[in-house]
Parts: sequence; structure tokens; C-alpha cells
Amino acid sequence: MGKLFDMALFFLIILSVILVMLETVKEIDERYHQILLVLEWCVTIFFSLEYIARIVSIKKPWKYIFSFYGIIDFVSTIPLYLSYILAGSQVLLAVRAFRLLRIFRILKLVKFIGEASQLQSALKASRTKIAVFIYVVLILSVILGTLMYLVEGDDAGFTSIPRSIYWTIVTLTTVGFGDITPQTSLGQFLATIIMILGYGIIAVPTGIVTAEFSRNKKETEETKKLVHLNTQACPSCSAEGHRDDATHCYNCGHTL
Amino acid sequence: MGKLFDMALFFLIILSVILVMLETVKEIDERYHQILLVLEWCVTIFFSLEYIARIVSIKKPWKYIFSFYGIIDFVSTIPLYLSYILAGSQVLLAVRAFRLLRIFRILKLVKFIGEASQLQSALKASRTKIAVFIYVVLILSVILGTLMYLVEGDDAGFTSIPRSIYWTIVTLTTVGFGDITPQTSLGQFLATIIMILGYGIIAVPTGIVTAEFSRNKKETEETKKLVHLNTQACPSCSAEGHRDDATHCYNCGHTL
Amino acid sequence: MGKLFDMALFFLIILSVILVMLETVKEIDERYHQILLVLEWCVTIFFSLEYIARIVSIKKPWKYIFSFYGIIDFVSTIPLYLSYILAGSQVLLAVRAFRLLRIFRILKLVKFIGEASQLQSALKASRTKIAVFIYVVLILSVILGTLMYLVEGDDAGFTSIPRSIYWTIVTLTTVGFGDITPQTSLGQFLATIIMILGYGIIAVPTGIVTAEFSRNKKETEETKKLVHLNTQACPSCSAEGHRDDATHCYNCGHTL
Amino acid sequence: MGKLFDMALFFLIILSVILVMLETVKEIDERYHQILLVLEWCVTIFFSLEYIARIVSIKKPWKYIFSFYGIIDFVSTIPLYLSYILAGSQVLLAVRAFRLLRIFRILKLVKFIGEASQLQSALKASRTKIAVFIYVVLILSVILGTLMYLVEGDDAGFTSIPRSIYWTIVTLTTVGFGDITPQTSLGQFLATIIMILGYGIIAVPTGIVTAEFSRNKKETEETKKLVHLNTQACPSCSAEGHRDDATHCYNCGHTL
Repeated sequence: MGKLFDMALFFLIILSVILVMLETVKEIDERYHQILLVLEWCVTIFFSLEYIARIVSIKKPWKYIFSFYGIIDFVSTIPLYLSYILAGSQVLLAVRAFRLLRIFRILKLVKFIGEASQLQSALKASRTKIAVFIYVVLILSVILGTLMYLVEGDDAGFTSIPRSIYWTIVTLTTVGFGDITPQTSLGQFLATIIMILGYGIIAVPTGIVTAEFSRNKKETEETKKLVHLNTQACPSCSAEGHRDDATHCYNCGHTL
Repeated sequence: MGKLFDMALFFLIILSVILVMLETVKEIDERYHQILLVLEWCVTIFFSLEYIARIVSIKKPWKYIFSFYGIIDFVSTIPLYLSYILAGSQVLLAVRAFRLLRIFRILKLVKFIGEASQLQSALKASRTKIAVFIYVVLILSVILGTLMYLVEGDDAGFTSIPRSIYWTIVTLTTVGFGDITPQTSLGQFLATIIMILGYGIIAVPTGIVTAEFSRNKKETEETKKLVHLNTQACPSCSAEGHRDDATHCYNCGHTL
Repeated sequence: MGKLFDMALFFLIILSVILVMLETVKEIDERYHQILLVLEWCVTIFFSLEYIARIVSIKKPWKYIFSFYGIIDFVSTIPLYLSYILAGSQVLLAVRAFRLLRIFRILKLVKFIGEASQLQSALKASRTKIAVFIYVVLILSVILGTLMYLVEGDDAGFTSIPRSIYWTIVTLTTVGFGDITPQTSLGQFLATIIMILGYGIIAVPTGIVTAEFSRNKKETEETKKLVHLNTQACPSCSAEGHRDDATHCYNCGHTL
Repeated sequence: MGKLFDMALFFLIILSVILVMLETVKEIDERYHQILLVLEWCVTIFFSLEYIARIVSIKKPWKYIFSFYGIIDFVSTIPLYLSYILAGSQVLLAVRAFRLLRIFRILKLVKFIGEASQLQSALKASRTKIAVFIYVVLILSVILGTLMYLVEGDDAGFTSIPRSIYWTIVTLTTVGFGDITPQTSLGQFLATIIMILGYGIIAVPTGIVTAEFSRNKKETEETKKLVHLNTQACPSCSAEGHRDDATHCYNCGHTL
């Protein structure tokens, strides 16, 4: 049952996000406006009921209401109602994309073959190193961006230092939009250095994460386990992540 | 003999694909239309005969006809005939590019020095981790794309959420076409974060695959073997991958 | 006290850089010119005083004045004064971005969890290998850039060999601005080879750094230590990096 | 002496390449044409003499003349002479960039700290794997490029299959020039898949090379040796790579 509900939730979240997407595509919205609106209302009513049910069924509703997911649930449900009171508030529908984060919660509970958590722990272990790396990249970008502003000036699109820093990051990360490009010889020479720098330092985060993975791999190779939990909340303490076959809350012992 | 036939097949596949390519280049097609058409017919007749020969020679033709490669063989041979009945069906000739997949089959049988299979097993082992990674990237793209749509709006080319998500993936993967670029300061700031994020998370698939390779390497280092098989199909059970010197099918024992 | 002063210094450096950035954004400069100018003067006076205090308090001022950071401190403080004497010298304000380098000094002293130094030693160990790599990339760029110049010629933007080399590096590092793109078939074919080459050789610096990290990791895993030092200079020998609780210079024994 | 000569050779090669570069920059060529021409002649005469000296001093000149470097030496020296006979042959001067390859020979002899050879052996060991990888990438590009041609058609710049394949490689390698971009929704969706694919498979060459480096590292860590050899050719057998203090050829025993 809990598993089935999770699956339904999963598909309704995807559906609700696709609906918002399609509404912003003019051709589709013009042709199928009525169908989209009806589906929109179905989804909204479902999530409204789910929201109320959650609040009613657990003993400490405030804890849920002001939790991270509680706020997302509320904020992504309310805009459709608001759109009948406030003109233009339909734009807020787009915040529903955040509801996708709930999928992470569903997935977190499933912990399929432990892979996600393995990824997570490798990233957590290399957190500080990556922070140092991003820090160095940012300072480099400010300095190089300022140099490019001095060298190129207004003509080539380097109209201000922040814009110049934006260009530097576009180049350093090898994205290279091409909306701003250096025109002077000196600017192109400096750009060349920035590119080779960016090409080289991409090795650093890769090196960090890989070293972490290789080590992590050995440790976790034998501890892979398939655990299936569901999103049912304990009516007493609102703890989540109970086993499918659980009859009592693992946290407070209350019957589920 | 089987080896020689495979080589001929290999070059005819390449030739047939190059022919289709050249036909779409207007200047070449105008000048050498006759030569291309003649070669086209030669290749088509060869593959038609090969197709019929395969059906006739094996005992369970239906199994082959509805197999993956059977459908590709049929679909990439038929369009030229169709083009005399249906106008415009010549466009279908392009599906012949799929015939290139047959090269994989030829190569799979050769298994040169075991490298390809080594690559394959490393990728297979990291399959679920890469799926989780792509999943996270997609959800991130939807959320960041929606944010960019709200921030940038219609003027800068972010005309709908799907288009905005397209831009986010272009940026996150460091491709950076530059057909759509953020114009507002807030949009450029957000773009900067997306780029650094993309620059950082490229480390994750690399880390996964590298860790897998390092481990895989040790295991397979001594098991490298050169095995040469051909694409001859058993007339009785249509099994493939017989050794060049085989006289009986390894699967059913039928004489080849 | 020393720690507090470092924090203040940290935020004033950030503030002074942000001020210079904002001054180059026309809309902001026009509206808030007065506020920016006042803040500018506050920051400049602070750094002027800090500069003078440093010179006065230590015994060998010349050593500091001509040191790397001494020159940065001077050059990033003087432009505002100069702007009243020389027209246009306000442009020099931008050199203040180099003051950000002082943040590295503050951070170097903190050595938070040893991560930065770990990164540094891994990079130092792979220094020569990366130099060889960049060297090969540069020679490749010159040769391929010259080939592209011969193939494409003036029409497509490949107006000179240096410009053609610039394009080659843009392509080889997978940045791809798109300001210059090959137009002939042969040029596009050559570009394809350059791209696949660039896609492949990005593996080399990554491989170098990762191998270094993996080894480095094992060695340094147990030697992580949190050391907090401050930027206070010894009045006698101007040595920096004293412990917060130090009462004597670790270098010459002078009281702090 | 041999070492000094190598240094001079090194700088003359660099100079000769820079001269060719500068000649293609119109502004510089117009202003300093006379100076460039004089330097050009000096360099050409030096390399002509060196070429003749090599032929004269060794016993088997034909072996050198038709060797890889012999041809490069000849081809990069002759164009200036030709330019007085044939109009337009000055364009051939650009082939001189290939002379840079001689630098590799000089470096190969120095083998500084064994790093270059270490890089080389790691790349050599992963050669077949990288070949398989490039092969798969190419077939993927042909199939995906053909699909994009069918989906996008002429309007968006996908005018022929070869051009469409060019775009696919630009996208798959995350270069992303933006000269051709998909316009239809389906095309953009397909482009998204290609980009994520490209973002993912960049992990494969990296994984291959890194695994090779990690293993290679352990083996070669203790075998680093500084060997200094020079480019002097044996007059008898034209073997190169003699030690600086050698008095006899290591190959045939002839006195040097």
C-alpha cells in the first residue's frame, strides 16, 4: 500500500511539473488550454487533500508545516487558488518545479542498491576540498575578469567588471557562449591563457572526486543492501522512512 | 572465407553510408548524380541478395526477420525500391546509417584484444551509478531552467520552460551554443552558478568510471585473449559467432 | 585580537573589490555615485593607515615595501589619490582586484583542515608533467592553427596565423565561442579532428592529477591538523604566521 | 658544444615560426616588412647550411634525406627560394610550422626527468582502448547526425548529412560553436540527449588514461633518471641520441 502510494505520488509530481512546462509553451497552451486547466485542477486538488491529510493525521502538525518539505508542499499547491484572487500570480505556478525535490525524498527512502548514498558520501568527503577549489576559481575569475575589462574595454562587450567576470567564468568553465568575445590581440592572448587554465584545472575536482570514489569503493563494496522504506509519516512524531512491513514507529514506538 | 566475407561486408556498409551522405550534399549530388545512383543500386542489390540468402539458408527465418539486426537489414534495403512507388520516400534512405550498427556486430565477434569488452564491463558495472547521476542532473536542470525562465522572461530567448531547460542543459554540460544567452544581471549571476556547478559535477561520472576501470584493470589484465569469430549463421539454429575453423555449430552441433 | 583583525581585513578587501566592480556598472554608478565615493574613501583611508602602520611598526620597512604583498598594498591604495592629479588614472582602481590575493595569505595562515595545502602539494608534484602537457598542446595548436589558416583563408575569419591559433585553442579546449567557425568542408573536417583530439587529451591532465591525489591521499590522511595563525608581522624581522597565543616571534624571539 | 648547439637550434626554430606568424598579420607585415624579410633570410640561410652540413657529414645521406625529419627540414627551408621563381608559393612558408616537430626530437633526447616518456608510455598502453572509444564515438556521431538531419532539415543549417555530423561532433565533444543550432522542439530534445551523452562519455577516455597512470606511476616511481643526450648524428650510421660525453657512436662504434 505505502509502496503503491509512493508510485502514484511519483507520477503525479512528474505530471504536475510537465503541466506547468506545457502551459508556458504558447502554441500548446492556446490549443489545449481547457484540457491543461482541468488536469491542473485535478492535480492541485489531489495535492491539497494530501497536504490536509498529512496535517490532520499527525500529532505535531506545526513541525511538518514549517519543515523544508512542508513549505514546498504548501508553496507549490497554493498558486492556482491565488490566481483567481491576484492577477498575474499564475507565474508562481512555476515554483512547482521545486516539488521535484520530493522525488529525492522518495528515492532516498528506496536507497536503490545503496548507489545514491555511496555517491553522496563520496561527495560529502570531498566537500571541503571542492569548496577550496571553487574559492580559488572565483578569486581567479575576479582577477582575470578585471584584467580583461582593462584590456578590452567597452567596444567588445566587456562593459563592466561584473560582466567581464561573467565572461571569464563562461570561458574558464569551457562553456564559451560566444555572446561576448575578445577583439584585441592582447585580449585574445589573455583569453588563450584563461582557456588553457580552465582546461587544466578541470582536472582538480575530477581528481578529488575520483580519489574519494576509489577509496569509498573498497569500503562499501560488501555493504550494499536493498532496503525498501516508504514515505508514511508516524502519526505521533512524524518521523518518516519506516520499513514497508513495519507496524510500529522505529522512533517512538507508536502504532502506524 | 568467413573472414573475407566479413571484410567485404564491412567495406560495403561503409560505402553505402558514404553514398547516402554524399547524396544530401547538393553540389556533389548535382554533378555526380548518375554515378551515385549506379553505386546505390549495386549496394542495394548486394544487400537484397544477402538478405534473401540469409532467409533461405537458415531453418527458422522468422526468428531472423524479427530480430533487431533483421529489421535493420530490411529497413535499410527497402527505401530505394519504395522511391519508385512513393514520391519523397528517398528520404528514408538516411535510415541506412543504422546499418553501421552491424559493424558493432562484426567487431563484437572479433573481440580485438578484449579491449571493447573490457570497456563494456566497466560501463556495465557503473550503470546504476550513472543512472542516478543523470537523474539528479535532469531534476537540477528542470529546477534551474524554471528559475531562469522566471528571471529572464521572453526577451532573452527564454520563451518557455522547456526551452529554458534546453538552455540549462546546454550550459550545465559546458556545451554553450550561445543561441540563447542571459541578458539581465540576475540571469547572468544564476548562469555563473550553473556553469560552476556543471564544471564541478563533470567530475562525478569521471570518478565513477575511473574507479571502475582501476578495479577492472587488475582483474582482466591476465585474461586478455585474441579470439577471431565470423558472422556466419548456423543453417539450423541461426546462432552466430562461430570460430573461423569451426566445422560444426557450437550451439546445436549441425554442420556448417 | 589578531584573529578579529584578520576577519575585518577579509571583509574590507571584499568590500573594496565590490566597490570597484560596482563603479564600472554605468546604471549603478550614475544613481549611487556619492555613496560609492564615500565608501571608496573610507576603504582607501583604512588601507592607507594600515600600510603606514605596517611600515612604522616593523624594523626593516624596505623589505616589506618591495615584497610582493607590499607592492600590491601600495598599488591598490594609491590610484584614488592619483585620480585628483591625473585625469583618467581612476582606471587604475581596477588593479585593486589584486588585493584579493591577500585573502590567499590570510587563508594560507589558517590552513583550514590542511585541505588547501593537500591540493597544493598534489599540484606541485604533477607540475613538470603538466608543463610537458601544456607544451605539447601549444605546439599542436601552432601546427593545427597554421593548417586551418592554409585551408580556410581570409573569408571565414581565419585572417592570420595568430588568430587561427587562437581559434584552435578555443576549439581544442572545448570552449567553442563560435565567433570564428570553419566554412569549407575540408576546414570542418579538420575541425572535427581537432575537437575529438581535444575531447581525448583532456584526459591527460585529469589522469595526472588524479593519480597524484590517490597517492597523496594515503600519505596525508592521518596528518590533518587544524592550525590557526594570524597575519601579525614581527616588528623586528617582519616574519608572519605567528600562532594566535604567541608572545614571541618564532623566527627571532622578539616580543610581539 | 652539442648542448649549446641544441639550444641555438631550439631558439632559431621558435624564431622562424614566429616570423611566419607575424608575416600573416597584415598590420605588422605592412609596417615591418623589410625587417621581417631580412630575418627570414638569415633563418633560411642558417637552416640551409645546417641541412647541407648534415648531408655532407654523414655517410648515408639518402637515409637522412628521405627520413621524416629530413623531409620536414627540406620542405620548411625551400619555400623562400621558390617564392622568387613561382608567384604565390610564399604561402608554403606556413609549412614551416612543422619544423616545431623538431623540438619534440630535441626534447625526446633530453628526456627531462623521464616525465615525457612516462606520459608517452601511459598513452601507448591505453592506445587500443582509446581507438575503440573514438570508433564508437564516430559511429554514434554518424547515426545521431543523420537523425538530426532528418529532424531539423534545411532551415536550421543542417543542410546535408556531413554538415549534420559535423554539428553532432561539435555538440558531443561539448565544444558548441553555435554556428548551427537546432530550431525545432524535437531537434532540441535530441540535442539535449546528445549533450548529456557527450558529458557522460568524456569520462571514458579519462578513466582509461587515469587507470593507466595510477598503475604506471608505481612502476616508474623509482626509475626516474636524468639523461642528457644531444642531436649530433653519427657520421657513419646517422644514429642520434649520443650522450654529451660520448666519443664513439653507441650504435656502430665510429668516432664522433
